Formats: sequence, C-alpha cells, structure tokens
Amino acid sequence: MSQFSINILGCGSATPTAFHNPSAQAVEYRGQLMLVDCGEGAQAMMRRMRLKFSRLSHVFISHLHGDHFFGLPGLLSTLDLQDKNGTVTVHAFEAGLDVLRKTMAIFCPDPGYEIIYEPIRNTEATILETDSLTVETIRLSHRVPCVGFIFREKPKLRHINGEMVRFHNVPNYKMASLRQGEDFIRPDGSVIPNKCLTTDADPAMSYAYLSDTAYNPALAEKIQGVDLLFHEATYDDAFDKLAGKYGHSTARQAAMTARDAGAGRLMLGHFSKRYNGNETLLLEQAREVFPNTILAREGLTTQLI
Amino acid sequence: MSQFSINILGCGSATPTAFHNPSAQAVEYRGQLMLVDCGEGAQAMMRRMRLKFSRLSHVFISHLHGDHFFGLPGLLSTLDLQDKNGTVTVHAFEAGLDVLRKTMAIFCPDPGYEIIYEPIRNTEATILETDSLTVETIRLSHRVPCVGFIFREKPKLRHINGEMVRFHNVPNYKMASLRQGEDFIRPDGSVIPNKCLTTDADPAMSYAYLSDTAYNPALAEKIQGVDLLFHEATYDDAFDKLAGKYGHSTARQAAMTARDAGAGRLMLGHFSKRYNGNETLLLEQAREVFPNTILAREGLTTQLI
Repeated sequence: MSQFSINILGCGSATPTAFHNPSAQAVEYRGQLMLVDCGEGAQAMMRRMRLKFSRLSHVFISHLHGDHFFGLPGLLSTLDLQDKNGTVTVHAFEAGLDVLRKTMAIFCPDPGYEIIYEPIRNTEATILETDSLTVETIRLSHRVPCVGFIFREKPKLRHINGEMVRFHNVPNYKMASLRQGEDFIRPDGSVIPNKCLTTDADPAMSYAYLSDTAYNPALAEKIQGVDLLFHEATYDDAFDKLAGKYGHSTARQAAMTARDAGAGRLMLGHFSKRYNGNETLLLEQAREVFPNTILAREGLTTQLI
Repeated sequence: MSQFSINILGCGSATPTAFHNPSAQAVEYRGQLMLVDCGEGAQAMMRRMRLKFSRLSHVFISHLHGDHFFGLPGLLSTLDLQDKNGTVTVHAFEAGLDVLRKTMAIFCPDPGYEIIYEPIRNTEATILETDSLTVETIRLSHRVPCVGFIFREKPKLRHINGEMVRFHNVPNYKMASLRQGEDFIRPDGSVIPNKCLTTDADPAMSYAYLSDTAYNPALAEKIQGVDLLFHEATYDDAFDKLAGKYGHSTARQAAMTARDAGAGRLMLGHFSKRYNGNETLLLEQAREVFPNTILAREGLTTQLI
C-alpha cells in the first residue's frame, strides 16, 4: 500500500457525463483515506478502486457547488451500513454543513460512527495537523467562496546507518536523537557527527489541490515547491474569457501556476464536457508551458514519491 | 418512441454496488418522463439511456431512505445547467421536500425552471391526474412511511372504422362522439349503432410500483388487474425472516402478490447486494409462483403493450 497517493474518483466539471464523474479524490496517507470533494458517484468509484470505506477519516469540501458535494450524503449513509466505526470529520463551509446535518438527521439519523462537522472559513489556515501531516486551506478565486487544500508531510526522520552505529558503539537509546539529527557524544566527550551515523531522511512530500479557481498569479507563491499540483483546467485557450467569467482556468493557466510554483508535477482535471472525454488539447497546451503534466482520469492512482 | 414504458435506472438496494445502482426508474408516457425514486446515479443512467432531461415533468419519491432520494439534488441541478424550462413537480413526504428545498437554496438558488414541491401524505390518493393518466399512492409496509405508485391510463377512445363512416355518410363533426362510444343518429331518426362504425379502443394500461415493502396480502387487492407490477424482491426464501424484520419482501412473496392481483407481468427489483448482481435464484423462486416474471436490470426498457 502506498504511503501517500492521490486516487481520482471524478475529474469532470458541472455534471456527471458518460466520460467523467464530477469532482472527487481520495488522498491516501499511511493507510488513512481523506476525500477531497465528493461529487455524485464518489462512493461507487471508491468501490471500483477498492478503497475501503472503513479507512475514511476526513472529507474536505472545497466549496458549495453540487458537483463537489452531492455524493456526500450517500457516502456517509453507506459508511453506516458498512458498520464503519470511529469518526469521520467533514470540513466544509458552514452552510454546507448545515444542510448536511439536516439531511443526515432525516436519512441516517443514528449512524454507528460519529460525524464531526468542522466549519471551513474563507481564510488560509491549517485545518488538520497530525504527527506526520498538515492540511492547509488556500483561498481560490471562484464565483462562491472556495478554498484549495495543501497536504504537507512534516519533515521525516533521518535513517540510521546500522554499520556505523555498531562501529561507534552507539547505545540503542540514542537512536531517536540520531534520527532527529543530533550528534553522538561519547562518554569521553569526543563527538561523532550525525552525518557519520545516519543517512538523509526521505523527502517530505506535498500535494496541492486547486479547484475551482480563475487564474490567479498569486497562488503560485503560496504553493512554492509543491511536489504534485492538481489544478483545474476546465477549458482550452479558446475559452480563456469564459474561464475568467465563470471563475475557472484554462489548461495553460494551470501550467503557468505549476511553472511559477516550481511544482514537481502537474495533474489537470475538472474538464468541461465539451471535450467529450478527450482532453488531449488541454494536455498539449499545458505541456507547452510545463512539460511534466498529466491528465486526471477516473481510476488513476498517483503516488507521491 | 414508446407511449408508455418503464426504464430501469437502478434496481439495487441500500447502496450503489459494482452491479446495481440504487432505486430509480423513469416512466415514459407519451413523451413525458416521470421519475419514480431517484437514488444516486439516476442522472448518469438517464444520459446513458438517452432519456432527455428536458422531458422530465414529475418525480415521485416513495419514502425517505437515501437509496431512493440522494440522486435528486444533483439531477435537479443538472436540469438547470441543461437550460430546462417549465416545471418539475417533486412529490415526496414533507421532511424530504423540506431538506430538498434547503439543499437547492444553497446549491442551485436560482434555477431557470420552476420546482414545485408537492407533499405526499401517508394515505391513498390520486396525486396526479392528466387528460389520459392518473397516478395514485398505495400504502406500503416499511420501516418508515412509504407509498407505492400506480400509474393508470384512462379509458381510451374507440377507433373510427373509416370505410363504414363513409358508407353511412357520417359527418366529420360526429367523429369525437363516435370515438366516445355514441351511436350515430341519422337526420331521418334511424340509428346506426356505434359498434358498426368503430372498433374497440386499445386497452388502458396500468403499472404499479411497490418498493419498499414487507409482504402484505392486502396489497394484491388494491392493484387488481395491473398490467405490469414492479415489486421489490430484496431477498430469496432463505431470508424471509430478515425480509419481515427490515420491511422487505422475498421474490416468492412478490410473486404471490402478482398472482393474487391477477397481474399481467411481474418485474423484480431492489436486490440485496448479497447476490452480487446474479439474481437467478430470485427469478426461479418467483416463477414457481408466477411464471411471467422478469428481473429488472439497469438499462432495461419495458413497454406496456
């Protein structure tokens, strides 16, 4: 099982079509699943991708348009039928939580697990912090209040070099401090530098989800150095005016943000139905600006490595 | 295009699975579409079956369980994006209408068509009457208030026998009364009996949708002579106690109701996921009681002829 991966449950815009489900992703992190948006059909895709409902811990809803939300009541009801226990925390703007509470009160009044309703505010903040990960909101430019989400691993521990710690007779209880980067001080006061006893930690990875948003050059700065950027790319160049009008981006604009952010990779999604499931044009236009770009597709899993 | 047909959008129970969508059907009548229940995925199946959103006039929700309702907010939002005009009337228990109103107020506050919210009461009544069709509710035995729906064509007009009306010199303005069954009285007072001038009308067809319900022998009487009966058949014989406990039926019980109602045909649906999409056992057990039985299946269209 991957430590940190993005699973695409839906990458179309506006409505389900024959080609795409509306927006939904499952971020898998160390066995835990976190949904990012939850358009209709998300639960069916989770089944098809064999992502276990029991491992779902958090849902992050970017904004209150139905194509990012309407799969949620059904999913939360299914969790109850699946004998989910523990908690699921739903992060969304308050009006969405309010209608979700009312919906669940009628359709699933006594679930076997706890739903925690956590309001998102239209600001930039860390909304989840665990021992190894943070999730931050980033303000987007859409027709209604809308945030993106940045998942950042915390810095990881260095790896012990087994041969060298044995050679220098480092006692076991020192391993934790070595992994933190501390030097080893011998009983005689002499110092063995940390770099002689450990090798570099694995890099801490980061993932940014930016959907839905008009192009905004300021976004790049806030996601500097992100390893994987998912950016909406509703339209191709020919519709850049429409993109601006409706608070969406072209594929090229998504690539400009990826380039200016120094992102590792870019994944495009939230495709208009006008492309009938063939978004090659969007891919080409983005790659002119940022070559390391791929298209999202239902069923796709991308690992952060 | 069929005058009167049933299109299966979903025939599984409880949750979407790899094999079935939750409950939803589109009744097509003279070019108009009426949805019966609207589980998640209904709109995607409508697209796949090429049933035009613009022709949707009514939605009938049998009860307030999510697998019969959660596709509705998305469908109603999609209608707006599709530039639907006119009205859509949603018939459902009041608590469902209430949460639907609140959902639409947030997610689709200004649709380009009118949604009419029409409360269903837990009684038996004619809830829709047009020139040619009525829709009645029938009380079912489920864990929450639940009704079935009976679609009945009104008696149709007799067919004019062209040769005979010419032979008897019947003036054109008499055709309407002939089709109603009246005799033709000549200016000299002599009578040409209607049966000499017309042939029998096509039979008025009827369709009953009974889902979800425990077996209740009294239901058969209320749907006497129905041409097509859709009856839930969540379980096979081995689970008859479970069926009773959860307010559901076995396939055999559905067949008993069809037999006792003198139904023309029986269609089984609302299948438990325990059958993994293979409901042959249910079909066999039902056919022991009522041979003219078929299984519902997503994508199936059945004409009432």
